[in-house]
Amino acid sequence: MKRIGLLGCGAIGTQIALAINSGQVQAELTHVYDYDKSKAESLVARLDKKPTIVENPHLLSSNNVDLVVEAASQDAIKNHALSIIQNRKDLMIMSVGALLDESVFDILFDACHEFKKRIYLPSGAIAGLDAIKSVKSELESVTLITTKNPKALAGAKFFETKNMDVHSIKEKTVIFEGAAKEAVTLFPANINVAALLSLAGLGSEKTLVKIVADPNTNKNTHKIEASGIFGKISIQVENVPDNTNPKTSRLAILSAIECLHTICSDDIKIGT
Amino acid sequence: MKRIGLLGCGAIGTQIALAINSGQVQAELTHVYDYDKSKAESLVARLDKKPTIVENPHLLSSNNVDLVVEAASQDAIKNHALSIIQNRKDLMIMSVGALLDESVFDILFDACHEFKKRIYLPSGAIAGLDAIKSVKSELESVTLITTKNPKALAGAKFFETKNMDVHSIKEKTVIFEGAAKEAVTLFPANINVAALLSLAGLGSEKTLVKIVADPNTNKNTHKIEASGIFGKISIQVENVPDNTNPKTSRLAILSAIECLHTICSDDIKIGT
Repeated sequence: MKRIGLLGCGAIGTQIALAINSGQVQAELTHVYDYDKSKAESLVARLDKKPTIVENPHLLSSNNVDLVVEAASQDAIKNHALSIIQNRKDLMIMSVGALLDESVFDILFDACHEFKKRIYLPSGAIAGLDAIKSVKSELESVTLITTKNPKALAGAKFFETKNMDVHSIKEKTVIFEGAAKEAVTLFPANINVAALLSLAGLGSEKTLVKIVADPNTNKNTHKIEASGIFGKISIQVENVPDNTNPKTSRLAILSAIECLHTICSDDIKIGT
Repeated sequence: MKRIGLLGCGAIGTQIALAINSGQVQAELTHVYDYDKSKAESLVARLDKKPTIVENPHLLSSNNVDLVVEAASQDAIKNHALSIIQNRKDLMIMSVGALLDESVFDILFDACHEFKKRIYLPSGAIAGLDAIKSVKSELESVTLITTKNPKALAGAKFFETKNMDVHSIKEKTVIFEGAAKEAVTLFPANINVAALLSLAGLGSEKTLVKIVADPNTNKNTHKIEASGIFGKISIQVENVPDNTNPKTSRLAILSAIECLHTICSDDIKIGT
Protein backbone atom coordinates (compact mmCIF):
# COMPACT_ATOMS: atom_id res chain seq x y z
CA MET A 1 0.00 0.00 0.00
CA LYS A 2 1.43 3.40 -0.98
CA ARG A 3 2.51 5.76 1.79
CA ILE A 4 1.43 9.37 1.28
CA GLY A 5 2.66 12.70 2.61
CA LEU A 6 0.22 15.62 2.45
CA LEU A 7 1.51 19.17 1.91
CA GLY A 8 -1.34 21.54 2.84
CA CYS A 9 -4.18 20.77 5.26
CA GLY A 10 -6.79 23.30 4.05
CA ALA A 11 -10.17 22.49 2.54
CA ILE A 12 -8.88 20.42 -0.41
CA GLY A 13 -6.14 18.66 1.54
CA THR A 14 -8.74 17.72 4.16
CA GLN A 15 -11.08 16.17 1.57
CA ILE A 16 -8.20 14.15 0.13
CA ALA A 17 -7.17 12.99 3.62
CA LEU A 18 -10.76 11.98 4.40
CA ALA A 19 -10.93 9.96 1.14
CA ILE A 20 -7.84 8.02 2.25
CA ASN A 21 -9.23 7.67 5.78
CA SER A 22 -12.51 6.18 4.48
CA GLY A 23 -10.71 3.65 2.26
CA GLN A 24 -12.02 5.27 -0.95
CA VAL A 25 -8.35 5.71 -1.82
CA GLN A 26 -6.40 2.64 -0.79
CA ALA A 27 -3.29 4.19 0.68
CA GLU A 28 -1.80 5.15 4.00
CA LEU A 29 -1.52 8.82 4.98
CA THR A 30 1.67 8.78 7.02
CA HIS A 31 2.85 12.42 7.27
CA VAL A 32 1.17 15.83 6.98
CA TYR A 33 2.39 19.43 6.98
CA ASP A 34 0.78 22.85 6.96
CA TYR A 35 2.60 26.14 7.55
CA ASP A 36 -0.29 26.86 9.95
CA LYS A 37 0.22 23.98 12.39
CA SER A 38 -3.29 24.36 13.84
CA LYS A 39 -4.72 23.30 10.46
CA ALA A 40 -2.65 20.14 10.50
CA GLU A 41 -3.79 19.44 14.06
CA SER A 42 -7.48 19.98 13.17
CA LEU A 43 -7.12 17.58 10.26
CA VAL A 44 -5.35 14.88 12.26
CA ALA A 45 -8.09 15.09 14.92
CA ARG A 46 -10.63 13.99 12.26
CA LEU A 47 -8.68 10.92 11.12
CA ASP A 48 -8.90 7.40 12.56
CA LYS A 49 -5.31 6.48 11.78
CA LYS A 50 -3.19 9.45 12.85
CA PRO A 51 -0.42 10.62 10.53
CA THR A 52 2.68 12.32 11.95
CA ILE A 53 2.66 16.13 11.78
CA VAL A 54 6.08 17.21 10.51
CA GLU A 55 7.67 20.55 11.32
CA ASN A 56 8.70 21.60 7.81
CA PRO A 57 7.92 20.57 4.22
CA HIS A 58 11.33 18.97 3.65
CA LEU A 59 10.51 16.43 6.35
CA LEU A 60 7.56 15.22 4.25
CA SER A 61 9.65 13.96 1.37
CA SER A 62 12.75 12.98 3.33
CA ASN A 63 10.56 10.52 5.23
CA ASN A 64 9.55 7.08 4.00
CA VAL A 65 6.66 8.08 1.71
CA ASP A 66 6.00 7.04 -1.92
CA LEU A 67 4.02 10.08 -3.00
CA VAL A 68 3.60 13.67 -1.82
CA VAL A 69 0.23 15.33 -2.47
CA GLU A 70 0.43 19.11 -2.75
CA ALA A 71 -2.74 21.00 -1.83
CA ALA A 72 -1.13 24.20 -0.62
CA SER A 73 -0.19 26.96 -3.07
CA GLN A 74 1.80 27.83 -6.17
CA ASP A 75 4.58 29.02 -3.86
CA ALA A 76 4.74 25.57 -2.28
CA ILE A 77 5.37 24.10 -5.75
CA LYS A 78 8.00 26.68 -6.63
CA ASN A 79 9.78 26.14 -3.31
CA HIS A 80 9.47 22.40 -2.71
CA ALA A 81 8.50 20.39 -5.82
CA LEU A 82 12.04 19.89 -7.08
CA SER A 83 13.36 18.60 -3.77
CA ILE A 84 10.40 16.19 -3.53
CA ILE A 85 11.37 14.66 -6.89
CA GLN A 86 15.07 14.74 -5.94
CA ASN A 87 14.11 12.82 -2.79
CA ARG A 88 12.70 10.21 -5.23
CA LYS A 89 9.03 10.65 -4.39
CA ASP A 90 6.20 10.97 -6.90
CA LEU A 91 4.15 14.18 -6.61
CA MET A 92 0.50 15.06 -7.22
CA ILE A 93 0.03 18.81 -7.77
CA MET A 94 -3.21 20.73 -7.17
CA SER A 95 -1.70 24.24 -7.69
CA VAL A 96 -1.02 23.60 -11.39
CA GLY A 97 -0.82 27.33 -12.19
CA ALA A 98 2.78 27.17 -10.93
CA LEU A 99 3.71 25.11 -14.01
CA LEU A 100 2.77 27.96 -16.39
CA ASP A 101 6.15 29.39 -15.42
CA GLU A 102 8.17 27.64 -18.11
CA SER A 103 11.33 27.48 -16.06
CA VAL A 104 9.43 25.68 -13.29
CA PHE A 105 7.87 23.27 -15.80
CA ASP A 106 11.16 22.51 -17.54
CA ILE A 107 13.07 21.92 -14.30
CA LEU A 108 10.41 19.52 -12.99
CA PHE A 109 10.05 17.77 -16.37
CA ASP A 110 13.81 17.11 -16.50
CA ALA A 111 13.87 16.02 -12.85
CA CYS A 112 11.12 13.43 -13.51
CA HIS A 113 13.28 11.89 -16.25
CA GLU A 114 16.48 12.04 -14.22
CA PHE A 115 15.06 10.57 -11.00
CA LYS A 116 12.50 8.29 -12.74
CA LYS A 117 9.60 9.81 -10.84
CA ARG A 118 6.20 11.08 -11.96
CA ILE A 119 4.21 14.25 -11.42
CA TYR A 120 0.42 13.90 -11.63
CA LEU A 121 -1.92 16.79 -12.45
CA PRO A 122 -5.60 15.91 -11.79
CA SER A 123 -8.12 17.18 -14.36
CA GLY A 124 -9.63 19.82 -12.06
CA ALA A 125 -13.02 21.31 -12.89
CA ILE A 126 -13.02 20.33 -16.57
CA ALA A 127 -13.53 17.24 -18.73
CA GLY A 128 -11.78 16.06 -21.85
CA LEU A 129 -8.08 16.62 -21.17
CA ASP A 130 -7.77 12.92 -22.10
CA ALA A 131 -8.68 13.77 -25.70
CA ILE A 132 -6.95 17.16 -25.85
CA LYS A 133 -3.55 15.73 -24.86
CA SER A 134 -4.06 12.84 -27.32
CA VAL A 135 -4.54 15.18 -30.28
CA LYS A 136 -1.91 17.70 -29.12
CA SER A 137 0.30 17.24 -32.19
CA GLU A 138 -2.65 17.91 -34.54
CA LEU A 139 -4.42 20.71 -32.68
CA GLU A 140 -5.12 23.86 -34.69
CA SER A 141 -7.13 25.86 -32.13
CA VAL A 142 -8.27 25.63 -28.51
CA THR A 143 -10.62 28.07 -26.83
CA LEU A 144 -11.83 28.11 -23.23
CA ILE A 145 -15.03 30.03 -22.51
CA THR A 146 -15.69 30.52 -18.81
CA THR A 147 -19.08 31.90 -17.74
CA LYS A 148 -19.78 33.06 -14.20
CA ASN A 149 -22.08 35.37 -12.34
CA PRO A 150 -20.43 38.82 -12.02
CA LYS A 151 -20.41 38.34 -8.22
CA ALA A 152 -18.20 35.26 -8.67
CA LEU A 153 -15.77 37.34 -10.75
CA ALA A 154 -15.63 40.26 -8.30
CA GLY A 155 -12.17 40.99 -6.90
CA ALA A 156 -10.34 39.89 -10.07
CA LYS A 157 -7.37 42.09 -10.94
CA PHE A 158 -9.00 42.62 -14.36
CA PHE A 159 -11.55 45.07 -12.92
CA GLU A 160 -8.82 47.25 -11.39
CA THR A 161 -6.88 47.45 -14.65
CA LYS A 162 -10.01 48.29 -16.68
CA ASN A 163 -11.50 50.58 -14.06
CA MET A 164 -14.77 48.64 -14.56
CA ASP A 165 -17.39 48.12 -11.85
CA VAL A 166 -18.36 44.44 -11.83
CA HIS A 167 -21.80 45.30 -10.42
CA SER A 168 -22.62 47.45 -13.44
CA ILE A 169 -22.91 44.34 -15.65
CA LYS A 170 -26.62 43.84 -16.23
CA GLU A 171 -26.64 41.36 -19.11
CA LYS A 172 -24.53 38.48 -20.42
CA THR A 173 -21.27 40.11 -21.58
CA VAL A 174 -17.92 38.88 -22.89
CA ILE A 175 -15.62 40.95 -20.65
CA PHE A 176 -12.27 39.43 -21.68
CA GLU A 177 -10.91 37.71 -24.77
CA GLY A 178 -7.22 36.92 -25.09
CA ALA A 179 -4.42 34.45 -24.50
CA ALA A 180 -4.53 32.13 -21.50
CA LYS A 181 -1.22 33.63 -20.38
CA GLU A 182 -2.85 37.03 -19.91
CA ALA A 183 -6.14 35.62 -18.59
CA VAL A 184 -4.52 33.85 -15.65
CA THR A 185 -2.91 37.07 -14.41
CA LEU A 186 -6.18 39.04 -14.69
CA PHE A 187 -8.49 36.29 -13.32
CA PRO A 188 -6.36 34.32 -10.83
CA ALA A 189 -9.41 32.37 -9.56
CA ASN A 190 -9.64 30.67 -12.97
CA ILE A 191 -6.00 29.76 -13.15
CA ASN A 192 -6.25 25.99 -12.71
CA VAL A 193 -8.58 25.27 -15.62
CA ALA A 194 -6.72 27.61 -17.99
CA ALA A 195 -3.36 26.20 -16.89
CA LEU A 196 -4.39 22.56 -17.33
CA LEU A 197 -5.85 23.21 -20.76
CA SER A 198 -2.73 25.13 -21.82
CA LEU A 199 -0.39 22.39 -20.60
CA ALA A 200 -2.44 19.62 -22.27
CA GLY A 201 -2.79 21.43 -25.59
CA LEU A 202 -1.24 24.45 -27.30
CA GLY A 203 0.44 26.23 -24.39
CA SER A 204 -0.63 29.45 -22.67
CA GLU A 205 0.17 31.77 -25.57
CA LYS A 206 -1.91 29.95 -28.20
CA THR A 207 -4.81 28.87 -25.97
CA LEU A 208 -7.58 31.46 -26.20
CA VAL A 209 -9.72 32.38 -23.20
CA LYS A 210 -13.04 34.20 -23.11
CA ILE A 211 -14.50 35.30 -19.80
CA VAL A 212 -18.25 35.87 -19.82
CA ALA A 213 -20.11 37.63 -17.00
CA ASP A 214 -23.73 36.52 -16.85
CA PRO A 215 -25.97 38.00 -14.11
CA ASN A 216 -28.59 35.33 -14.91
CA THR A 217 -26.49 32.32 -13.91
CA ASN A 218 -25.42 30.95 -10.55
CA LYS A 219 -23.21 28.23 -12.04
CA ASN A 220 -19.57 28.24 -13.11
CA THR A 221 -19.48 26.92 -16.66
CA HIS A 222 -16.37 26.00 -18.62
CA LYS A 223 -16.62 25.30 -22.32
CA ILE A 224 -13.72 24.01 -24.41
CA GLU A 225 -13.73 24.12 -28.20
CA ALA A 226 -10.86 22.41 -30.00
CA SER A 227 -10.29 21.54 -33.63
CA GLY A 228 -7.68 20.02 -35.91
CA ILE A 229 -7.03 17.23 -38.42
CA PHE A 230 -8.66 14.69 -36.04
CA GLY A 231 -12.00 16.59 -36.15
CA LYS A 232 -13.69 18.77 -33.52
CA ILE A 233 -14.14 18.47 -29.77
CA SER A 234 -16.64 20.52 -27.80
CA ILE A 235 -16.90 20.07 -24.04
CA GLN A 236 -19.11 21.91 -21.59
CA VAL A 237 -19.10 21.44 -17.83
CA GLU A 238 -21.62 23.18 -15.57
CA ASN A 239 -20.03 22.97 -12.15
CA VAL A 240 -21.75 22.95 -8.79
CA PRO A 241 -19.58 24.31 -5.93
CA ASP A 242 -18.49 21.78 -3.32
CA ASN A 243 -20.67 22.17 -0.23
CA THR A 244 -17.75 22.10 2.21
CA ASN A 245 -15.58 24.41 0.11
CA PRO A 246 -17.68 26.79 -2.03
CA LYS A 247 -14.65 28.30 -3.79
CA THR A 248 -13.91 24.93 -5.42
CA SER A 249 -16.03 22.97 -7.87
CA ARG A 250 -17.21 19.56 -6.71
CA LEU A 251 -15.68 18.08 -9.89
CA ALA A 252 -12.22 19.46 -9.03
CA ILE A 253 -12.25 17.60 -5.71
CA LEU A 254 -13.69 14.39 -7.18
CA SER A 255 -11.13 14.35 -9.99
CA ALA A 256 -8.27 14.79 -7.48
CA ILE A 257 -9.55 11.85 -5.42
CA GLU A 258 -10.00 9.71 -8.58
CA CYS A 259 -6.49 10.61 -9.76
CA LEU A 260 -5.06 9.56 -6.39
CA HIS A 261 -7.10 6.36 -6.43
CA THR A 262 -5.67 5.46 -9.83
CA ILE A 263 -2.10 6.16 -8.72
CA CYS A 264 -2.53 3.95 -5.66
CA SER A 265 -4.41 0.91 -7.08
CA ASP A 266 -3.37 -2.00 -9.28
CA ASP A 267 -6.54 -2.03 -11.25
CA ILE A 268 -8.28 -1.63 -14.60
CA LYS A 269 -7.50 1.97 -15.53
CA ILE A 270 -10.12 3.50 -17.79
CA GLY A 271 -9.16 6.25 -20.23
CA THR A 272 -6.03 7.83 -21.65
CA MET B 1 12.95 1.54 -21.14
CA LYS B 2 9.83 -0.65 -21.13
CA ARG B 3 9.80 -3.77 -23.31
CA ILE B 4 6.56 -4.28 -25.22
CA GLY B 5 4.90 -7.33 -26.79
CA LEU B 6 2.28 -6.64 -29.47
CA LEU B 7 -0.70 -8.98 -29.88
CA GLY B 8 -2.26 -8.22 -33.27
CA CYS B 9 -0.45 -6.72 -36.27
CA GLY B 10 -3.43 -5.27 -38.19
CA ALA B 11 -4.06 -1.59 -38.94
CA ILE B 12 -4.14 -0.40 -35.32
CA GLY B 13 -1.27 -2.62 -34.13
CA THR B 14 0.80 -1.32 -37.03
CA GLN B 15 0.20 2.33 -36.09
CA ILE B 16 1.18 1.61 -32.50
CA ALA B 17 4.34 -0.21 -33.63
CA LEU B 18 5.26 2.71 -35.91
CA ALA B 19 4.81 5.16 -33.02
CA ILE B 20 7.30 3.12 -30.98
CA ASN B 21 9.62 2.81 -33.99
CA SER B 22 9.67 6.60 -34.50
CA GLY B 23 10.43 7.28 -30.83
CA GLN B 24 7.07 9.01 -30.25
CA VAL B 25 6.54 6.32 -27.62
CA GLN B 26 9.77 5.72 -25.73
CA ALA B 27 9.78 1.96 -25.47
CA GLU B 28 11.22 -1.11 -27.15
CA LEU B 29 8.99 -3.38 -29.22
CA THR B 30 10.58 -6.75 -28.57
CA HIS B 31 8.00 -9.39 -29.62
CA VAL B 32 4.99 -9.46 -31.95
CA TYR B 33 2.29 -12.02 -32.77
CA ASP B 34 -0.54 -12.26 -35.26
CA TYR B 35 -2.58 -15.39 -35.95
CA ASP B 36 -1.95 -14.50 -39.61
CA LYS B 37 1.85 -14.69 -39.64
CA SER B 38 2.12 -12.77 -42.92
CA LYS B 39 0.72 -9.69 -41.12
CA ALA B 40 3.42 -9.95 -38.49
CA GLU B 41 6.04 -10.29 -41.20
CA SER B 42 4.73 -7.27 -43.13
CA LEU B 43 4.84 -5.20 -39.95
CA VAL B 44 8.35 -6.27 -39.00
CA ALA B 45 9.55 -5.40 -42.51
CA ARG B 46 8.52 -1.76 -41.86
CA LEU B 47 10.41 -1.42 -38.57
CA ASP B 48 14.02 -0.30 -38.11
CA LYS B 49 14.62 -2.34 -34.98
CA LYS B 50 13.18 -5.80 -35.67
CA PRO B 51 11.09 -7.47 -32.96
CA THR B 52 10.94 -11.27 -32.72
CA ILE B 53 7.85 -12.87 -34.29
CA VAL B 54 6.56 -15.45 -31.82
CA GLU B 55 4.60 -18.54 -32.84
CA ASN B 56 1.71 -18.26 -30.36
CA PRO B 57 0.25 -15.61 -28.06
CA HIS B 58 1.48 -17.32 -24.88
CA LEU B 59 5.04 -16.75 -26.03
CA LEU B 60 4.40 -12.99 -25.95
CA SER B 61 3.81 -12.80 -22.23
CA SER B 62 6.09 -15.64 -21.17
CA ASN B 63 8.96 -13.69 -22.67
CA ASN B 64 10.79 -10.83 -21.00
CA VAL B 65 8.34 -7.99 -21.72
CA ASP B 66 6.86 -5.43 -19.31
CA LEU B 67 3.61 -4.75 -21.15
CA VAL B 68 1.51 -6.52 -23.75
CA VAL B 69 -0.52 -4.34 -26.13
CA GLU B 70 -3.64 -6.07 -27.48
CA ALA B 71 -4.85 -4.81 -30.87
CA ALA B 72 -6.46 -8.02 -32.06
CA SER B 73 -10.04 -8.92 -31.10
CA GLN B 74 -12.44 -9.50 -28.22
CA ASP B 75 -11.67 -13.21 -28.52
CA ALA B 76 -7.99 -12.50 -27.96
CA ILE B 77 -8.90 -10.81 -24.65
CA LYS B 78 -11.21 -13.63 -23.58
CA ASN B 79 -8.56 -16.24 -24.42
CA HIS B 80 -5.30 -14.61 -23.37
CA ALA B 81 -5.74 -11.58 -21.05
CA LEU B 82 -5.79 -13.58 -17.83
CA SER B 83 -2.61 -15.49 -18.60
CA ILE B 84 -0.87 -12.21 -19.55
CA ILE B 85 -1.64 -10.82 -16.07
CA GLN B 86 -0.75 -14.16 -14.45
CA ASN B 87 2.59 -13.94 -16.25
CA ARG B 88 2.99 -10.62 -14.39
CA LYS B 89 2.80 -8.32 -17.41
CA ASP B 90 0.73 -5.15 -17.64
CA LEU B 91 -1.78 -5.08 -20.49
CA MET B 92 -3.21 -2.36 -22.73
CA ILE B 93 -6.53 -3.40 -24.30
CA MET B 94 -7.97 -1.99 -27.54
CA SER B 95 -10.90 -4.50 -27.79
CA VAL B 96 -12.61 -3.12 -24.69
CA GLY B 97 -15.99 -4.58 -25.66
CA ALA B 98 -14.74 -7.88 -24.19
CA LEU B 99 -14.95 -6.33 -20.71
CA LEU B 100 -18.72 -5.82 -20.98
CA ASP B 101 -18.93 -9.53 -20.15
CA GLU B 102 -19.01 -9.13 -16.36
CA SER B 103 -17.31 -12.45 -15.71
CA VAL B 104 -14.37 -11.38 -17.91
CA PHE B 105 -14.20 -7.98 -16.18
CA ASP B 106 -14.35 -9.46 -12.68
CA ILE B 107 -11.69 -12.12 -13.35
CA LEU B 108 -9.29 -9.54 -14.80
CA PHE B 109 -10.03 -7.00 -12.05
CA ASP B 110 -9.24 -9.58 -9.37
CA ALA B 111 -6.13 -10.78 -11.23
CA CYS B 112 -4.78 -7.19 -11.35
CA HIS B 113 -5.05 -6.98 -7.57
CA GLU B 114 -3.61 -10.44 -6.98
CA PHE B 115 -0.62 -10.10 -9.32
CA LYS B 116 -0.17 -6.32 -8.75
CA LYS B 117 -0.45 -5.57 -12.45
CA ARG B 118 -2.46 -2.97 -14.38
CA ILE B 119 -4.80 -3.05 -17.34
CA TYR B 120 -5.03 0.15 -19.38
CA LEU B 121 -8.01 1.07 -21.56
CA PRO B 122 -7.29 4.04 -23.86
CA SER B 123 -10.12 6.57 -24.30
CA GLY B 124 -10.91 5.56 -27.87
CA ALA B 125 -12.91 7.92 -30.07
CA ILE B 126 -14.40 9.98 -27.25
CA ALA B 127 -13.39 12.69 -24.80
CA GLY B 128 -14.20 13.22 -21.16
CA LEU B 129 -13.85 9.78 -19.58
CA ASP B 130 -11.51 11.58 -17.15
CA ALA B 131 -14.47 13.50 -15.71
CA ILE B 132 -17.05 10.70 -16.05
CA LYS B 133 -15.00 8.24 -13.95
CA SER B 134 -14.29 11.01 -11.41
CA VAL B 135 -17.99 11.65 -10.79
CA LYS B 136 -18.99 7.96 -11.03
CA SER B 137 -20.31 7.79 -7.45
CA GLU B 138 -22.57 10.82 -8.02
CA LEU B 139 -23.79 10.15 -11.56
CA GLU B 140 -27.54 10.19 -12.06
CA SER B 141 -27.74 9.75 -15.84
CA VAL B 142 -25.44 9.16 -18.81
CA THR B 143 -26.55 9.19 -22.44
CA LEU B 144 -24.47 8.53 -25.56
CA ILE B 145 -25.85 9.88 -28.84
CA THR B 146 -24.01 8.54 -31.88
CA THR B 147 -24.76 10.11 -35.26
CA LYS B 148 -23.56 8.58 -38.52
CA ASN B 149 -24.43 8.53 -42.17
CA PRO B 150 -26.78 5.58 -42.87
CA LYS B 151 -24.06 4.13 -45.14
CA ALA B 152 -21.72 3.97 -42.14
CA LEU B 153 -24.38 2.05 -40.18
CA ALA B 154 -25.14 -0.43 -43.00
CA GLY B 155 -24.51 -4.05 -42.08
CA ALA B 156 -25.41 -3.62 -38.40
CA LYS B 157 -27.38 -6.54 -36.95
CA PHE B 158 -30.07 -4.00 -35.96
CA PHE B 159 -31.34 -3.73 -39.54
CA GLU B 160 -31.83 -7.51 -39.82
CA THR B 161 -33.80 -7.68 -36.58
CA LYS B 162 -35.99 -4.70 -37.54
CA ASN B 163 -36.31 -5.70 -41.17
CA MET B 164 -35.42 -2.08 -42.02
CA ASP B 165 -33.61 -0.97 -45.17
CA VAL B 166 -30.83 1.40 -44.17
CA HIS B 167 -30.99 3.09 -47.60
CA SER B 168 -34.61 4.10 -47.07
CA ILE B 169 -33.56 6.66 -44.44
CA LYS B 170 -33.89 10.04 -46.12
CA GLU B 171 -33.73 12.44 -43.18
CA LYS B 172 -32.08 12.62 -39.76
CA THR B 173 -33.76 9.87 -37.70
CA VAL B 174 -33.28 8.37 -34.24
CA ILE B 175 -33.28 4.67 -35.19
CA PHE B 176 -32.40 3.18 -31.80
CA GLU B 177 -32.84 4.24 -28.19
CA GLY B 178 -32.06 1.84 -25.36
CA ALA B 179 -29.50 0.47 -22.93
CA ALA B 180 -25.83 0.27 -23.95
CA LYS B 181 -25.98 -3.46 -23.29
CA GLU B 182 -28.52 -3.89 -26.10
CA ALA B 183 -26.92 -1.28 -28.37
CA VAL B 184 -23.56 -3.05 -28.51
CA THR B 185 -25.16 -6.29 -29.76
CA LEU B 186 -27.19 -4.47 -32.45
CA PHE B 187 -24.41 -2.06 -33.57
CA PRO B 188 -21.13 -3.93 -33.03
CA ALA B 189 -19.13 -1.25 -34.89
CA ASN B 190 -19.93 1.18 -32.05
CA ILE B 191 -18.98 -1.19 -29.28
CA ASN B 192 -15.78 0.49 -28.08
CA VAL B 193 -17.24 3.90 -27.29
CA ALA B 194 -20.35 2.46 -25.63
CA ALA B 195 -18.25 -0.04 -23.65
CA LEU B 196 -15.77 2.57 -22.41
CA LEU B 197 -18.53 4.94 -21.35
CA SER B 198 -20.39 2.12 -19.57
CA LEU B 199 -17.27 0.97 -17.73
CA ALA B 200 -16.33 4.52 -16.70
CA GLY B 201 -19.81 5.45 -15.52
CA LEU B 202 -23.07 3.67 -14.76
CA GLY B 203 -22.54 0.27 -16.40
CA SER B 204 -24.08 -1.05 -19.60
CA GLU B 205 -27.62 -1.44 -18.24
CA LYS B 206 -28.01 2.14 -16.99
CA THR B 207 -26.07 3.91 -19.76
CA LEU B 208 -28.50 5.02 -22.46
CA VAL B 209 -27.58 4.97 -26.14
CA LYS B 210 -29.28 6.73 -29.04
CA ILE B 211 -28.23 5.92 -32.59
CA VAL B 212 -29.06 8.61 -35.13
CA ALA B 213 -28.88 8.04 -38.89
CA ASP B 214 -28.28 11.30 -40.74
CA PRO B 215 -27.96 11.21 -44.56
CA ASN B 216 -26.61 14.79 -44.47
CA THR B 217 -23.45 14.05 -42.50
CA ASN B 218 -20.20 12.34 -43.45
CA LYS B 219 -18.78 12.48 -39.92
CA ASN B 220 -19.09 10.09 -36.99
CA THR B 221 -20.24 12.16 -34.05
CA HIS B 222 -20.43 10.98 -30.44
CA LYS B 223 -22.18 13.12 -27.87
CA ILE B 224 -22.18 12.33 -24.15
CA GLU B 225 -24.59 13.96 -21.71
CA ALA B 226 -24.09 13.25 -18.03
CA SER B 227 -25.61 14.79 -14.92
CA GLY B 228 -25.54 14.41 -11.15
CA ILE B 229 -24.84 16.24 -7.89
CA PHE B 230 -21.57 17.61 -9.35
CA GLY B 231 -23.43 19.42 -12.14
CA LYS B 232 -23.68 18.62 -15.86
CA ILE B 233 -21.19 17.46 -18.46
CA SER B 234 -21.82 17.65 -22.20
CA ILE B 235 -19.18 16.41 -24.62
CA GLN B 236 -19.32 16.24 -28.39
CA VAL B 237 -16.64 14.78 -30.66
CA GLU B 238 -16.87 15.00 -34.45
CA ASN B 239 -14.45 12.35 -35.62
CA VAL B 240 -12.52 12.23 -38.87
CA PRO B 241 -11.59 8.69 -39.99
CA ASP B 242 -7.91 7.80 -39.91
CA ASN B 243 -6.51 7.98 -43.43
CA THR B 244 -4.67 4.67 -43.22
CA ASN B 245 -7.57 2.88 -41.52
CA PRO B 246 -10.95 4.40 -42.46
CA LYS B 247 -12.93 2.12 -40.12
CA THR B 248 -11.23 3.74 -37.12
CA SER B 249 -11.41 7.35 -35.96
CA ARG B 250 -8.14 9.27 -35.95
CA LEU B 251 -8.79 10.12 -32.27
CA ALA B 252 -8.99 6.42 -31.31
CA ILE B 253 -5.51 5.82 -32.68
CA LEU B 254 -4.06 9.02 -31.21
CA SER B 255 -5.51 8.24 -27.77
CA ALA B 256 -4.02 4.73 -27.84
CA ILE B 257 -0.58 6.13 -28.68
CA GLU B 258 -0.89 8.81 -25.97
CA CYS B 259 -1.98 6.19 -23.42
CA LEU B 260 1.05 4.06 -24.28
CA HIS B 261 3.34 7.09 -24.12
CA THR B 262 2.06 7.86 -20.61
CA ILE B 263 2.56 4.26 -19.45
CA CYS B 264 6.13 4.24 -20.75
CA SER B 265 7.45 7.66 -19.63
CA ASP B 266 8.47 9.11 -16.27
CA ASP B 267 7.00 12.47 -16.91
CA ILE B 268 4.45 15.14 -15.97
CA LYS B 269 1.13 13.34 -16.45
CA ILE B 270 -1.73 15.72 -17.28
CA GLY B 271 -5.27 14.80 -16.30
CA THR B 272 -7.06 12.26 -14.13
